[in-house]
Amino acid sequence: MARVVVDVMLKPEILDPQGQAVQRALPRLGFEGIADVRQGKRFELQVEGPVDNAALARIHELAETFLANTVIEDFTVKVENAEESK
Amino acid sequence: MARVVVDVMLKPEILDPQGQAVQRALPRLGFEGIADVRQGKRFELQVEGPVDNAALARIHELAETFLANTVIEDFTVKVENAEESK
Repeated sequence: MARVVVDVMLKPEILDPQGQAVQRALPRLGFEGIADVRQGKRFELQVEGPVDNAALARIHELAETFLANTVIEDFTVKVENAEESK
Repeated sequence: MARVVVDVMLKPEILDPQGQAVQRALPRLGFEGIADVRQGKRFELQVEGPVDNAALARIHELAETFLANTVIEDFTVKVENAEESK
């Protein structure tokens, strides 16, 4: 079974209070040099069957209609077969 | 400025009610063939200066101590310079 990752991030022009809170907290915690933080969502989908163009189109539609609010969010769809290292 | 992405996901053995809710809703919405959904967080950090091994080690420490709860979550750190296509 293939893994497809959908990343959903707020559009660049939309204020991201979560990310800002993280970014402002970093110097207090001793981490300097991070100019900006944006926080978003990551969905890992285990897809049954082959991940062909039809399946990807379906997942794209799924992400657009259900996982992301495209008024304020952008999303990317990526096929990711191998497990990532930590 | 380089972009470093930290993905934080619940460990595989930890129950993910958010992901389960998404997965169960999909057939109702007409999307079949998704066996499992896991939902996690994605942090995009804009790093000032070069992203060398020292900077990556610092970001790894930051992610471990601050962005992820390593008791229940795994995280990955990735350098990502180019903008992704939608």
